Amino acid sequence: MKAAVLHQYDESLTRDEFVRYEDFADPKIERPTDVIVRIGGAGVCRTDLHVVEGIWRSKVDVALPYVMGHENAGWVEAVGRGVESVKVGDPVICHPLVTSGHCLACRRGDDMHASDSRFPGINANGGYAQYLSTGERSLIRLPKSLAPKDVAPYTDAGLTAYRAAKKASRHLLPGQFAVVIGAGGLGHIGIQVLNALCAAEIIVVDRSETALQLAKECGAHHTVEGDGNEVESVLGLTGGSGAEAVIDFVGEGDAVAKGLAMTRNGGFYYIVGYGGKIELPTMDMITSEKTIVGNLVGTYPELVELMALADRGLVHLATREYRLSEANQALKDLHHGKIKGRAVLIP
Amino acid sequence: MKAAVLHQYDESLTRDEFVRYEDFADPKIERPTDVIVRIGGAGVCRTDLHVVEGIWRSKVDVALPYVMGHENAGWVEAVGRGVESVKVGDPVICHPLVTSGHCLACRRGDDMHASDSRFPGINANGGYAQYLSTGERSLIRLPKSLAPKDVAPYTDAGLTAYRAAKKASRHLLPGQFAVVIGAGGLGHIGIQVLNALCAAEIIVVDRSETALQLAKECGAHHTVEGDGNEVESVLGLTGGSGAEAVIDFVGEGDAVAKGLAMTRNGGFYYIVGYGGKIELPTMDMITSEKTIVGNLVGTYPELVELMALADRGLVHLATREYRLSEANQALKDLHHGKIKGRAVLIP
Amino acid sequence: MKAAVLHQYDESLTRDEFVRYEDFADPKIERPTDVIVRIGGAGVCRTDLHVVEGIWRSKVDVALPYVMGHENAGWVEAVGRGVESVKVGDPVICHPLVTSGHCLACRRGDDMHASDSRFPGINANGGYAQYLSTGERSLIRLPKSLAPKDVAPYTDAGLTAYRAAKKASRHLLPGQFAVVIGAGGLGHIGIQVLNALCAAEIIVVDRSETALQLAKECGAHHTVEGDGNEVESVLGLTGGSGAEAVIDFVGEGDAVAKGLAMTRNGGFYYIVGYGGKIELPTMDMITSEKTIVGNLVGTYPELVELMALADRGLVHLATREYRLSEANQALKDLHHGKIKGRAVLIP
Amino acid sequence: MKAAVLHQYDESLTRDEFVRYEDFADPKIERPTDVIVRIGGAGVCRTDLHVVEGIWRSKVDVALPYVMGHENAGWVEAVGRGVESVKVGDPVICHPLVTSGHCLACRRGDDMHASDSRFPGINANGGYAQYLSTGERSLIRLPKSLAPKDVAPYTDAGLTAYRAAKKASRHLLPGQFAVVIGAGGLGHIGIQVLNALCAAEIIVVDRSETALQLAKECGAHHTVEGDGNEVESVLGLTGGSGAEAVIDFVGEGDAVAKGLAMTRNGGFYYIVGYGGKIELPTMDMITSEKTIVGNLVGTYPELVELMALADRGLVHLATREYRLSEANQALKDLHHGKIKGRAVLIP
Ligand SMILES: [Zn+2]
Ligand SMILES: [Zn+2]
Ligand SMILES: [Zn+2]
Ligand SMILES: [Zn+2]
Ligand SMILES: [Zn+2]
Ligand SMILES: [Zn+2]
Ligand SMILES: [Zn+2]
Ligand SMILES: [Zn+2]
Ligand SMILES: [Zn+2]
Ligand SMILES: [Zn+2]
Repeated sequence: MKAAVLHQYDESLTRDEFVRYEDFADPKIERPTDVIVRIGGAGVCRTDLHVVEGIWRSKVDVALPYVMGHENAGWVEAVGRGVESVKVGDPVICHPLVTSGHCLACRRGDDMHASDSRFPGINANGGYAQYLSTGERSLIRLPKSLAPKDVAPYTDAGLTAYRAAKKASRHLLPGQFAVVIGAGGLGHIGIQVLNALCAAEIIVVDRSETALQLAKECGAHHTVEGDGNEVESVLGLTGGSGAEAVIDFVGEGDAVAKGLAMTRNGGFYYIVGYGGKIELPTMDMITSEKTIVGNLVGTYPELVELMALADRGLVHLATREYRLSEANQALKDLHHGKIKGRAVLIP
Repeated sequence: MKAAVLHQYDESLTRDEFVRYEDFADPKIERPTDVIVRIGGAGVCRTDLHVVEGIWRSKVDVALPYVMGHENAGWVEAVGRGVESVKVGDPVICHPLVTSGHCLACRRGDDMHASDSRFPGINANGGYAQYLSTGERSLIRLPKSLAPKDVAPYTDAGLTAYRAAKKASRHLLPGQFAVVIGAGGLGHIGIQVLNALCAAEIIVVDRSETALQLAKECGAHHTVEGDGNEVESVLGLTGGSGAEAVIDFVGEGDAVAKGLAMTRNGGFYYIVGYGGKIELPTMDMITSEKTIVGNLVGTYPELVELMALADRGLVHLATREYRLSEANQALKDLHHGKIKGRAVLIP
Repeated sequence: MKAAVLHQYDESLTRDEFVRYEDFADPKIERPTDVIVRIGGAGVCRTDLHVVEGIWRSKVDVALPYVMGHENAGWVEAVGRGVESVKVGDPVICHPLVTSGHCLACRRGDDMHASDSRFPGINANGGYAQYLSTGERSLIRLPKSLAPKDVAPYTDAGLTAYRAAKKASRHLLPGQFAVVIGAGGLGHIGIQVLNALCAAEIIVVDRSETALQLAKECGAHHTVEGDGNEVESVLGLTGGSGAEAVIDFVGEGDAVAKGLAMTRNGGFYYIVGYGGKIELPTMDMITSEKTIVGNLVGTYPELVELMALADRGLVHLATREYRLSEANQALKDLHHGKIKGRAVLIP
Repeated sequence: MKAAVLHQYDESLTRDEFVRYEDFADPKIERPTDVIVRIGGAGVCRTDLHVVEGIWRSKVDVALPYVMGHENAGWVEAVGRGVESVKVGDPVICHPLVTSGHCLACRRGDDMHASDSRFPGINANGGYAQYLSTGERSLIRLPKSLAPKDVAPYTDAGLTAYRAAKKASRHLLPGQFAVVIGAGGLGHIGIQVLNALCAAEIIVVDRSETALQLAKECGAHHTVEGDGNEVESVLGLTGGSGAEAVIDFVGEGDAVAKGLAMTRNGGFYYIVGYGGKIELPTMDMITSEKTIVGNLVGTYPELVELMALADRGLVHLATREYRLSEANQALKDLHHGKIKGRAVLIP
């Protein structure tokens, strides 16, 4: 099959070519629960840039060359002998983790913390390709309203944003405020999910005017330009106290310090983006009684919930399509902030 | 009246005398809801050392000389005209915050986050004295089983430990683990509260053999000496994964980094002690999906709950009594780690 | 002052006159926290019909003649000496309960379960009058967007619907269903609150075509005519399993049995309307693991939350105005199902 | 193999023989995930008496003759080709439900509400036999501290009690009360679980002096004889207000009405036992804002949690052993209230 293959890391992201479009071995059914999916679309993610930079090397065990792409949807191409819940031809979206279902985390519904998982596109070959090997437990059948290429980025970008926004919605009451930092591929989903799941007023902070425009279309009630005075602006909008929830989809540079400063005493700072550092005196955490919440991608049932929102039109994903052979262009456009919403590679 | 008065800050805590035992103006009833309490005992707290060091100067607005002491219990000496719920002579314990009860935080039961509060001993004169001015809403009548001098430190040391342990108990299931870092004045209460409120296995980490002995008496199931290999020891006791809850009563030095390292993925690190820094890459929060929870002292209803535990003998406070005139000795003994449990000043 | 006064009970609701419009003694300031409110509007409630029927006699201690009307808003007319948080002339909405704030329920934010409360209009004189005596702790200042006569019914009809819908919203996930039985004065608010606080699909059941029309305007996704086949219709809409939440604003006749039958296994049946009976074998509760939740009016902070929704236009109250002298007409129109939304008496 | 087989229903439970000890066909591996367990012990349950009475006939589809016994533990005898997580010879306890794990309830950890389950002993052959057919997903390996015959009744009696007590423990605060009605096979576990998971004061109501004695050994703080004045006694012990949680393990006769009357306003009545009826006016639910919670057996992770409590000695099961050939004697002793704790059949 054809795939866009990563051959070497590039710490400064300056090479002409991050991946190479070339022939690659077809995936095979190896376990009774394996499923091969013909890719309809694969989302291009900031995490892929971080993989190219090599910053995931210390966290996961994967040898180059390999195929990135952890945001996948398509059609069932082949199934192992034990597969009961999907059949060849079904349109499906792929939860990014593949689990056996036996560990206690899986039994409790927290499959994201399974002790028995693999993560195609991160620690195994992914979906920047024509075919992907995944597992039965990772697949959700799509309703007719949703085409694979239009929903692929929901599996990670969307699902991560959904999980963080859902956590925040559990405590956000009418009359309270949520700040979303960064209205890109994840952030624009987060705004819509907040609007669907709670009645907080939503303030969006971004440096880009285009992103703030997208934020408004997604239902932001207030937008704040990231011009250096973001904290003051948010304090002004929230009566001087800050927001009960801040969801930081940037997690780099001064976003973290500013995000914490925008959080009301007793409030929650959700960290989703990464690359930067959290640095603060323990005393500031004690006197403010703030909570800092790390956020990974959501669970399988949460992806089912997100598909229900998408099916009903309550969440819409802004995508831009690229051919799989244009993977480098998509990655570079993302790196240079040129994409509104989310890039998707189509084989 | 007599009081132990703070006249100047001492950043290095090296002076002979931190406070001066001398005559000080009696507090007066000024508001209809004011109550004067004759002090039965005032707890001596690490926060008092931090006040002497001056690290609270930037957080609160108080002019020297003033009287420290925010952990108070005694008997009602005088009441304002509007006071209905206590009468002169009642034995009472004093919630550390004095609130009006009108703001939305108070109306929701979160009086700790009141927008309308004062904090005797921190930003107003406190209980290192014969008498204290507080408010009706801060007082809980004591049952006969509990003498003021024996319970005074519950108001802050005990209540802070109670709140953090209660938060942890809400998610700790049988078969899971809680780590308590520091088995001093707060920690030894935290251990007992965990035992009362959940069935997690409790691991206590401390550098002092005496503290670990106290921990065992308080119900610790495992003790770990703080010898540099604490993280490995805790991972060993928890099957390699870490604890679902870590409550850090130290919050200084390497406790923070070690506490986070002992926390299981998806788990909660409760920070109670302070003085040090939290420093970690955002990526570590994302991939682990840990949560860092700041903890302030508990609410009025939580102090009622803690008194119920004390009344039934489910929590016991280790105290060491000093005369009010010996306040400097008590502060120095605390500073040099010579107190098992909690020092209490008796006028 | 003028008031519409209840002089005798009428079990069959057949008399010409339920209340008499006549002169009545003005309320006076008696306690330091008392507030007299000049009524801008008083909601007419099915509970008032039940009071006339006499079915509240065994629950509350009130002697006739007295003044009904527990859904009140207006302007502060006079205040007791201790009142700090409102001043004469302020437009206010009145939480229906008057509490002292000292009991543990109040301290926990559950003022609805206060041990120290009175309920004007139920066990004290209410707002079918020009003036009402209430307490400082019951008042919320209105924003300019909201006029007293337009919001009065929020205090009970709206607040009860809000509380039940909020409870349901805490567990309703995208892809799940909520059934609302009865789209009258409470139900039409409940539908809007569900839409504001969660993303469940909402099915509304009512016998009246007019009510179902109002339900659609309020955001119902499906409407079901109460023609005898309601249960089958709801099961059909929910894939045969029933809804995760059923909120029953009727609570009489066969609504209860049908409501329980529409509830999915493991789901929640919220009972708000009353007059009928719950009758079922314990075995049915065990095998289905359903939960039956009783619902009283909401707390003071919940009324603040509801006002925030109203202020932002997320909830709108359908009202029909009557002169106070037309109180009997309003009560009779309500009894005969002729009111879309909620009747309000204007002095 | 030998089994105690049910050949006919007996509505009045008056026959000499309920089941017949005889030869019965061995169970076979049919699915890749099937597991045959050699029974070490099978608990005898009040539900078995209800099955004999025929009251489950309308709920489940099973043809006579069949083998009862849904509380099983033993050793793995044979496994299907797909089984990975247990091996022949492992000592195991059997979660009573057998599920495929694919439905959304299973994926959320609520396997008790699976749409794809069977229930050996209820709707398939159970463990009143030498061998039982179950599924891989139902098995938990036992630690050395726990022998199969000693833990078998935990799978249903224990697990049901655990789930109800765990639900109650989530809201019971220090200073609050829990009432346990019925200190038999389930109740005596419920008392111990409450003690392990929260600090509420526990009041136990039972008609039998022996049962109340067992209750005290299990940690009851107060015992109340079921002499007709139970409600008054409980109100007296709780300051006139009733208990925040009432767990009713009887669910027959006047237990339901009394249980609801013992429940504090705003409190929770957990119904576990069955056979009787719930009957009350909707108005009583509204004015009291009580909640009635149905309780089925717990989930697989909850059985893991209960085993952790048992392993640590925090919960102990009172059992009385019978030979499998004495099944009728065990059933009759249970019917006549002669068993303290729980009967277990040993093949
Ligand atoms: Zn991604
Ligand atoms: Zn797993
Ligand atoms: Zn980066
Ligand atoms: Zn302190
Ligand atoms: Zn306040
Ligand atoms: Zn009303
Ligand atoms: Zn109260
Ligand atoms: Zn009626
Ligand atoms: Zn059973
Ligand atoms: Zn299932």
